[in-house]
Parts: sequence; structure tokens; C-alpha cells
Amino acid sequence: MAIRKIKAGIIGATGYAGVELVRLLSGHPHVELAAISSVSFSGEELSKIYPNLRCSVDMTLDEGPQEMMNRCDVIFASLPHGLSQELAKDCVDRNIVFIDLGADFRLENEDDYKTWYGGSFLSEELHKQAVYGLCELFREEIKGARLIANPGCYPTSVALAMYPALKAGLIDTENIIIDSKSGVTGAGRSLTQNTHFPECNESFSAYKAGGHRHTPEIEQTLSKLAGKPVKVTFTPHLLPVNRGILSTIYCSCKAEPDELRRCYQQAYKSEPFVVLLEDGEYANIRNVRLSNNCHVSLHFDERTGRLIICSAIDNMVKGAAGQAVQNMNIVFGLEETTGLTAPAPAF
Amino acid sequence: MAIRKIKAGIIGATGYAGVELVRLLSGHPHVELAAISSVSFSGEELSKIYPNLRCSVDMTLDEGPQEMMNRCDVIFASLPHGLSQELAKDCVDRNIVFIDLGADFRLENEDDYKTWYGGSFLSEELHKQAVYGLCELFREEIKGARLIANPGCYPTSVALAMYPALKAGLIDTENIIIDSKSGVTGAGRSLTQNTHFPECNESFSAYKAGGHRHTPEIEQTLSKLAGKPVKVTFTPHLLPVNRGILSTIYCSCKAEPDELRRCYQQAYKSEPFVVLLEDGEYANIRNVRLSNNCHVSLHFDERTGRLIICSAIDNMVKGAAGQAVQNMNIVFGLEETTGLTAPAPAF
Amino acid sequence: MAIRKIKAGIIGATGYAGVELVRLLSGHPHVELAAISSVSFSGEELSKIYPNLRCSVDMTLDEGPQEMMNRCDVIFASLPHGLSQELAKDCVDRNIVFIDLGADFRLENEDDYKTWYGGSFLSEELHKQAVYGLCELFREEIKGARLIANPGCYPTSVALAMYPALKAGLIDTENIIIDSKSGVTGAGRSLTQNTHFPECNESFSAYKAGGHRHTPEIEQTLSKLAGKPVKVTFTPHLLPVNRGILSTIYCSCKAEPDELRRCYQQAYKSEPFVVLLEDGEYANIRNVRLSNNCHVSLHFDERTGRLIICSAIDNMVKGAAGQAVQNMNIVFGLEETTGLTAPAPAF
Amino acid sequence: MAIRKIKAGIIGATGYAGVELVRLLSGHPHVELAAISSVSFSGEELSKIYPNLRCSVDMTLDEGPQEMMNRCDVIFASLPHGLSQELAKDCVDRNIVFIDLGADFRLENEDDYKTWYGGSFLSEELHKQAVYGLCELFREEIKGARLIANPGCYPTSVALAMYPALKAGLIDTENIIIDSKSGVTGAGRSLTQNTHFPECNESFSAYKAGGHRHTPEIEQTLSKLAGKPVKVTFTPHLLPVNRGILSTIYCSCKAEPDELRRCYQQAYKSEPFVVLLEDGEYANIRNVRLSNNCHVSLHFDERTGRLIICSAIDNMVKGAAGQAVQNMNIVFGLEETTGLTAPAPAF
Repeated sequence: MAIRKIKAGIIGATGYAGVELVRLLSGHPHVELAAISSVSFSGEELSKIYPNLRCSVDMTLDEGPQEMMNRCDVIFASLPHGLSQELAKDCVDRNIVFIDLGADFRLENEDDYKTWYGGSFLSEELHKQAVYGLCELFREEIKGARLIANPGCYPTSVALAMYPALKAGLIDTENIIIDSKSGVTGAGRSLTQNTHFPECNESFSAYKAGGHRHTPEIEQTLSKLAGKPVKVTFTPHLLPVNRGILSTIYCSCKAEPDELRRCYQQAYKSEPFVVLLEDGEYANIRNVRLSNNCHVSLHFDERTGRLIICSAIDNMVKGAAGQAVQNMNIVFGLEETTGLTAPAPAF
Repeated sequence: MAIRKIKAGIIGATGYAGVELVRLLSGHPHVELAAISSVSFSGEELSKIYPNLRCSVDMTLDEGPQEMMNRCDVIFASLPHGLSQELAKDCVDRNIVFIDLGADFRLENEDDYKTWYGGSFLSEELHKQAVYGLCELFREEIKGARLIANPGCYPTSVALAMYPALKAGLIDTENIIIDSKSGVTGAGRSLTQNTHFPECNESFSAYKAGGHRHTPEIEQTLSKLAGKPVKVTFTPHLLPVNRGILSTIYCSCKAEPDELRRCYQQAYKSEPFVVLLEDGEYANIRNVRLSNNCHVSLHFDERTGRLIICSAIDNMVKGAAGQAVQNMNIVFGLEETTGLTAPAPAF
Repeated sequence: MAIRKIKAGIIGATGYAGVELVRLLSGHPHVELAAISSVSFSGEELSKIYPNLRCSVDMTLDEGPQEMMNRCDVIFASLPHGLSQELAKDCVDRNIVFIDLGADFRLENEDDYKTWYGGSFLSEELHKQAVYGLCELFREEIKGARLIANPGCYPTSVALAMYPALKAGLIDTENIIIDSKSGVTGAGRSLTQNTHFPECNESFSAYKAGGHRHTPEIEQTLSKLAGKPVKVTFTPHLLPVNRGILSTIYCSCKAEPDELRRCYQQAYKSEPFVVLLEDGEYANIRNVRLSNNCHVSLHFDERTGRLIICSAIDNMVKGAAGQAVQNMNIVFGLEETTGLTAPAPAF
Repeated sequence: MAIRKIKAGIIGATGYAGVELVRLLSGHPHVELAAISSVSFSGEELSKIYPNLRCSVDMTLDEGPQEMMNRCDVIFASLPHGLSQELAKDCVDRNIVFIDLGADFRLENEDDYKTWYGGSFLSEELHKQAVYGLCELFREEIKGARLIANPGCYPTSVALAMYPALKAGLIDTENIIIDSKSGVTGAGRSLTQNTHFPECNESFSAYKAGGHRHTPEIEQTLSKLAGKPVKVTFTPHLLPVNRGILSTIYCSCKAEPDELRRCYQQAYKSEPFVVLLEDGEYANIRNVRLSNNCHVSLHFDERTGRLIICSAIDNMVKGAAGQAVQNMNIVFGLEETTGLTAPAPAF
């Protein structure tokens, strides 16, 4: 592994997840960022579009996917849903690792994909090869994978919040309510009235209550963990900050607070990126910004017997590009934290 | 009524709710702002502390409460809890209307007050005279009151969100979850590390999950509406904006969406300050900022049968000073909207 | 005057200046907002586009300009430059007051208009009738006008900062440098990458240094005040807040600090909307937000003999819609502050 | 060099510059962060105060300076002015490199120090040994130094903006005006009303116009570069963002635009951290955030013959902790960019 660097390519490098991949991969000690592409900005220098990369990343958006495949060991794709399946197939056929930051391979059930995304599977075979890359949950499957479905941002924040309790059967799966709040980068680089500064600043609301596309992805993971079908109510909100997702999750807990806390401690004591906060502390998006970390805090409402779980991630790192790099590290047998150790800044 | 103006005094005029009262009362056509006081800034000009009032309000913080009582028809008090009871008694004894923006008279049960605030009632008699000033719910009682307990900000946002459904018995009272998010003015003018700009900006977290003092106040109102004891899980969050509360409320609804919507339409069709948004619209704090309005939106999660109610208010207006003025209008027999008709700015 | 309300119409009511006019005029005691129009949203309810107006303004964007003229005493136009001249002509011909919030009538010299805006004058005659509506400077001319060129936001902030000193000849006109910072509403409602929340938030830069279209307008006013041609260096910056312009102006002062201060006190002592701050205080956009006020502070750099003047306005009020209403008040003989007395909120 | 890591200590590690040093040094490949201290939080874990460091930095604030000296090769001090001189003397006596992020050694002239800071020099001798650590300007002197005065944030932004032109004599030194805007972290961790979120958010003003303590430091550097005394007018402003300084500098240029641009290109072509932007681009704090980079843009106001220079840095990195690390790299003979290569994030 140390003999030569992994050659990585990024398709969709000018989107927000794409440029975040550029940032992380350009500092990864075992990666050579070999090629970047973009439909909209082909032929342009990336640092003209993102002047923050001056001094640091001197690359031109000059290659289409096919040429990229000739030169890369791994390809990251950050594309609107529906555009990754053909590319993934080509990569798999050529034994190139394909890490999809889009939604094409996240859902295992084609009916769900049709219902929520309006598309169909290119090949049942191909989908069976895809591994859902939520590293802390499916590390073993990821190790041997060539095709990774990088999880959605909200589903990551929810899965890490609930994993230990669900796995241990400590939660009633009937009444799970997820109230999530995401920074505006989650809405991407495309311009909309809702993300126009004067209308987004000092603003706050829910959107797509009960109807967000991440709902079936959340349920798929929670159902696996619980060993039975789980349905949730999921309401996302748009938060006037750049980065971060905070999920506040409500459920009924069958265990005593101490038992539950020990369950989380056990599950996360060796996880490099998940921090179980102490009693009385609250997960805050500020403390994970620009890091691959997830902070989880547990709160018991003694009066109602309800459990409140808060989890905080950076939607662009652990919720997108960082977890994609973490997946790459696992697939290629690198130390899992390689290139992802920079601490979150205090402000 | 039109013969002479109501003389109003504000105790605690330099706190955030106090100065918001100054702003609203100074533009009220039937009010003369006769006196303002502040323990911390006695003798100073208010516009030295709040330069936004230059040109507009030229008053000195020069009077103690007793002198104020000699000159005022109504006194608004915006004080930390525990400091209003004596003042209220004096006012009631002298037939001066007392509108308390603090918490001293909000809870009817002294045990609750002890549990959550650590204090006791000065006089059971006095507390019986206090009317909980949630105008849309208790308008009739307010009309004859001399002592008003102005509701808390979170309880206002919750009560208006749930009132029609609870009153009509359309909601299962067993599983109510309230996830609220408040702008930073809700934390007041006092300095804390959490509200220091570099640590509050781009930050977001829950606080006091299951333990916020507004919980018993919320439950008191919901129980009255439901006609039976209601317990809720209530989690507040600190939102990095100046103004606004959005409450996202989860519950089980016994009615069909259409029936529920009609119930809300009926309840709010004549309310000047409550807007039931249309199907597909979402309550947003942006749209009520600086107004006394409350926007309510209803969302059905068909997959789980759950109802999601969003309500948005300006925590400093409908959640504090604006509702206090609305209460004054009712008590003095004025048109309820007087002085409160300025529309929310678009940005 | 009290006999009947002034009927007002707004062309371009869905732009940011337009909807700010709606907000102000809907609360003006002597105005009936009779008609609003918008090319983009014809036939729609304004409160669907701006839900902040629910409860307050119930109007449909249903009329073209011609019909509007049949019903209005005054028409406000908030349009991209080049579109107001024909409309102004029609209004003037029909004796309707026309207040143009765009740039078509601000420059007196057609060559300047050609150079900076690329257009030409429809009629020299018409332009001669236009009065530049910077109320504090040209109140007398405004009184008799039917066609008002409402000043630009930056030029307003600069003119009010410099007026007393220039008029009194206390400033060296050779070395005036204007460093201005504007909130994002100044860029309007149209979507751009620079005003996309994630790229505008936590961001700050200059733009169009030395080349902004408000430069000739600033110079035109300063030249009039100085009685000789004045050239300035003007650099605007985009400030990540919604509202406000702060201009920091550098020049050489021929007078002693005391003399200069007296000159400003004299000039502004009777002005209802201009506040000369005291020695040691600094103009801050926070303190004028949502008001028609301008705060001016004077600072002397004794070490270099230079004078630093800071002025703060709300770019959408005194810098646009508020001053337009002030102009209307003057033209129609109303008290100049009518409808504009709401104090700035503290936060 | 690779044989053993440099042992570094930080005095004042819980202040904003201190914790930023922790962040940078913890990721520096040739540094072992050996000790951190804080008067206010002695004995506490740093990650309790800064939860962003969980997972990443596991250190206790347990040592006083003297013990620290026994274990460290280099000590960084981030203290209020007046507190570094004794410590510096001890370090120099013991041949420990001392890098002072405070102001005690920045001014060479004791009279200036008295005038602006009200203190005196502990030892003239000691001050002579101090090197002003503006790396791009004084790299050679820094190489042999043991005592580094790390520059102030504003002076860094100004020096890098003006260095090439002043050095080459292309600027008139008589009329330099510096209008700077700083993010709120520049005001530090201490609580003040001005940095309380509701009063800082959506706010903007100048402060200490003509009287900021960085003025003599700016003039000292500019005078050295010009080879003659230079006086400037310097006005700082508080910008409602966390990080970043933008300085907009006005002066008269004796050269043609092309010549000036070539001069800057020449000066900065080999500098790893300074980027001369292209014609038409503007320096923006967004593009240097969290990096040690400085972006410089040049703008000519042809109408007045004036030159406008914009420079952007991250006040906490190039303006404080990053430049301190850069200085350490130079002193210890490391590659100057070591530990400072992470690109600025796009958002």
C-alpha cells in the first residue's frame, strides 16, 4: 500500500460534496488526486471556481469519466440521482473501486427507489454488489467491496445516534420520531430563493415533513439494526448555518439510563470518529464542524419515560465526503482515520 | 377611552423584553409611556443604552416602582422570577393593572412553582386573581382582569399550535412531543459563553431537554384544553438567529386531515394574529419577525399516521412584549390589534 | 388632506424595494395602497410570494401601469434602469406624481448616464422636471415636484455624512475616500452565486472598486454641495447581513473638531431622521435597522489630521423605500415623518 | 530533523489564539505538543472547555510556565500585554525559543510602547533580541532568532498588502488610508455586550478610529519598508463573522498598473502563503478561512489615480497562530509550510 499512492478521481468535482472531496483528498497522505471532472465547468481550472483552493490545488476540470477510469484506482461520484449506475457498472467491470455519494445504490429495494426517486435499477446484479458504506455499522462488508453506496447525510446522523440501542434491542421501535436540522450546504450549490442570503439568513423552517427522500434510507438501516421493519417520522429543517446536522431523536427506552449509557460506551469506545458525550453535555454542530466526527448525547425525560438522543455531524464531512474517504480507507486497507484526523476548529 | 391616553410604566425596561415593550408602546396610539425603570441603569437615558431609540424615545430611567404607581394606569414588569409578587400586590391594591412578563403568576399550582422555580406564592388570594394571558385562549377572562400573567415564549408557540385540535378532542394526548428552536434574544441580555458571538454563530444544539421551566406551563395549558392531565416531552434548542421560535410538534391525530384542517380554520378564521397556512406551506420564523403574528402549518405523515404541527412566532413580540400589549388592549377595552398592526418585514 | 387618502400604486412591487414600499405604505395613515403590479407575478396574491404579509396586506398583483394610473395620485416605480422614463412621462402628462426608485432620473448629465448606465434620456424636458429626492438637502425643490428621482442607497449614506461639512466649506474636496459596506438586500431578489447563503455567509469582500454606478451620483451631489467639481474614490463591499449600509469616509478637514461638530449640530438639530452621535460613539447599522434614520459619527485622527465620518442607514428604508415615502410626504404637504416614526428595534 | 520531534508548550492555551495553536500544532508532523497551561482553567481537561477537541486532543491544563520550560524546545505565549516579558527572559536565558503572540515585543521603540500600551520594557537588551516575525518580510532575521514577536492580525494584513509596492518605492507614503474589517474572534473569548450574539449579529460599525493599538505596529513596519517615517490613518471595524480580516487600503501609486502588478508578481511568486489575485478578482475572507494564506488584490481607480489594495487573511491563522507556527518552522529549519498546508474549505 505504501509503495504507491492510490489514484483517485472525482466526478462532479464542482458540487459542494465534490469540492469537499477535493479538499480532503488533496491532504490525504496516501492518495494522488489524479483527475477531476465536471459537466458544467469542463476545461476550467478548479481554483477559478473555488478561489479558496489557490496555493493548494492546481487542477483543471478536463476529463470525462471514461478517460478518468484509465488512470484511477478509485472513482468518487457526486452526481444527481440516476446518473451513477452506468458509471458504476463500467468501474466494476474494470475493477475500479466506485464510491457513489449520490442516492443510486443506497436503497436495496427497487420498489422503494421507484417510489421515492422515480427511477429503476440498471442491474439487479450490480445493486447486489453495492455495500452501504456506513462505516461504523458495516465495516466488515465494506472491506471487500468494490462498489460503495455512501450514505446520505441525515441517515448517517440518525444511524449513529441509534445504532447501539437498536442493536441491543433497548428501544421500542414503534414510536421513533426524528427531528433533524441541517446547514444550508446540504441544499447544494444550485441557487434557489430559499437559499438566497436575505431569505435564508435569520430564517428557519421545516421542509418535506414526512416526505423527504432520506426517509426510506433511514428506515432501511434502522430495520436492519432492529431485525424487524421500523417506520419513523422524519422532519428535516433548514438551519441558517453553513455546515452541520443536528438530529434530535425521540423514542421509548426499555432500559435504565445507566444500562443504556453503558451500551453506547461499549459500542463506541473503540470508534475513532464517534464521541459519546457525558451526562449533561449536548451534541452541538459547532464541535464537529470540518471534522469526520459524530457527537452523540443521551437525555432522559424522567417525567415521561422518554429517551432523547442528539447527534451532531458535519453534513459535508461525516455526512458526505469524509465518510467517502473513510470508506476508501477501509476498502484499500489503510488505517481508517488516514487523512481525516484534523480536529474540528473551536470557531 | 379616546378621552385620555392610558399611562403605562415599564419595570425592567432595559432587559430585552423591556426594551421591546418600549418600542411597541412608544408607537401605540392610545398609550402614553409615562415611566420606565431599571435597577442597573437608574438615572441614565434609555437611548444611551439602546442607541436605536435615538430620535424616537427620549426617556430617562429615573423612577422606582412606587413612584411609578402614582402615575400609571398599567404597569408592565419584566423581571427575573420571584421579584414580581410584591409589586403585583401593591398594584392590585391600588387598582393599577399589572402585566407580568415574568414567571411568577403563570403556574396555578404552588407545588409546580416550587418544583420548577424554587419559590413560593406570596398570597394564594393574589394568585387566584391572576389570569393567564394567552389572548386567543382566554380572552374572556382577560377582559375583567387586573393582574395578567403574560405567557412564556415557548408555551405561547405550543398553545397556539395545539389549541384547536386539543379543544376539539382530535389529538391523542398521550404522545405529544415538542421540539422547539428559539432565537438568541430568548436568552436575554446577560452575557454567557454560549451566547458569545464566535461560539453561538454557526452553532446549534439542544439544551435542558426534558427539564426546561416552560414545561409545566405548557402542560398546564394543554391540560386545560384537553380537559385532562397532559404530559409532554419538550426539548428547546438555541438557534443562531436574533428572533423567532419555531415549534415542531408531533402527535397522533384521531381525525382525517380534512377534518383537522377545518377545525383549525374554524378556530382561527377570526383571529387577527393567527394564520393557518395552506397545505404544503411551512411556518417560518422569517415571516413573523417583528410582528405579533403566529403562523401555524399542519403536516400529515401518512406513512405513520402521525400529525406534525409547526408554529412560528417572534419570541420577543407574540412570545413576550407584543402579547403583553395585546393583553393590555383587551383589559382596557381597546381594539385588540391596536399598536400591533405593523406587518412583518420581508427580510 | 385628511379629507381623503392619497391613492398610491407600486410598479415592481415584488422586488425588495417594492415589497418594502408595500410594508411602509400599508401602515401609512394617509395612504391607501390602491394598486400593485409586477411583471413576473401578475395575477398572484402578493402574500403568496411574501408570506410575511399574511394578516396584513391582502392584495393581488393584477394591474398594468396604465390602469394603475387611472386610480392613483402617486406612483412609485422600482424597476431596473431604463424602464421608468416612459412611465414617468405618462404620469407627468396626467399630473400623477411619479417617484422613481430606479436610476433613470438621478443623473442630470446625459453623458454621465450614457457612460455609467449605457442609456440615453427620453426627453431632456422630462429630466429637467425631475428633482433629486434627497430630502434633507433638497426639501424645497421637492415640495413642488411631480417627478422625483429617489436617491441610491450608497449616495444617500454619503450625502448625509458629508452635507454639513461640504456645505460649510470645511472639507478639502481633493482627497475624499469612501469605503462603504452594504447588507445583501442591496443586491436585490435575483439569485446569484455571491448571494447564495453558503457562499455569502461568513464572507466579505469589496466589489466594483472605483467602478460602481453610484459613483457619479455621489459626485453629482457632493459637487453641488461644494459648489465645485468633486471627485471621489468609492469602494463598496458586500456585508453578510440583511440590511444596512455603513459608509466610512476619509477626508481632510480645515476646521477644528469643535467647529466641525457645531456645524453638524446646527445642520441636523431640526432634522427628524438624522442623528449626530456624540463624541466617542460610532454609527452602527444595528441602530437604524428598519427605520428611516441616519446615524452620523465624527472621528478625528489627530496624528494625521484626517477626519473620519461614519454614517449608517438602512439601505431598504432611508436608502430606498423609506426615503421614497418621505418624498411623497413632502410633495403632498404631509408631516414629513408620517408613516415613518416606528423606532428601530434593538435587535 | 526527523530524529526527534520539537517539544512545544503553549501558555494561555484556552484563549482563542491559544486553542488555535493547539489545533495547528496537534496536526504538525514534527511537533509534539508537550504542555499546555492556563491560569483560569488549571487542572482541567482542555477538551472539556473545547469539546471540538474530543477524539483529537487529550490534554490537561496542568503546568505552570516554569515546569513547562523544563520540557519544551519552544514556548508559545498568548497572553494579555505586559505578561510575556519575564517569561521571555527566562526562556531566552535557558535557550528555549519563545514565540510571543502578544504585543510585548512588537514595538521596537519603548516610547511607543508606553504611549499605546502604558507599559515599559523589562530589558532593552531583551527587546533587541526580539525579531518581528512577519515571515515574508523578515525571513532571514527570523532564522536565527530565539525570541519572536508574532505580529498583530491587522498589521499582518496590511504589511502583506503593501510590502511589494512600498519596498519598490511605488507608493506615495503621505496618504495611506487603511480601512480594516475583522471577524469577532479577533475580540477574543472574553464576554462583552458588543460581542453578545443578539447585539453583534446583523450589526456593523467601526471602533477605535485613529486610536487602535495596532496603529504604531503598522507604521513601524511600513516605515521600515519605505525607508522613511510613514504615518497612516487606520480604522478597524467589527464584522459579524467568526474569522477573517479584510483590509481595504487606499493610496497614491506612482507606477502604471502593469508595473505595479509585475512588482507584486515578482515579490510573491515564490511565497507559499501569499496569492496575488488576477485583475478583476477581489480578496475575500471566505477564501482564506482556516488557512495560513493571504489573498491580495489590486484595483486602480482610473478616475482619481488612486490605488486600492485589498488583502484577506484568517485573523486566527495567518493573523495569529498560523504565522506563529510558520515562525517556528523557520526558526527550527523546517520546511516553512509544514503543518500549514490544509487548504481553506470552500464554505
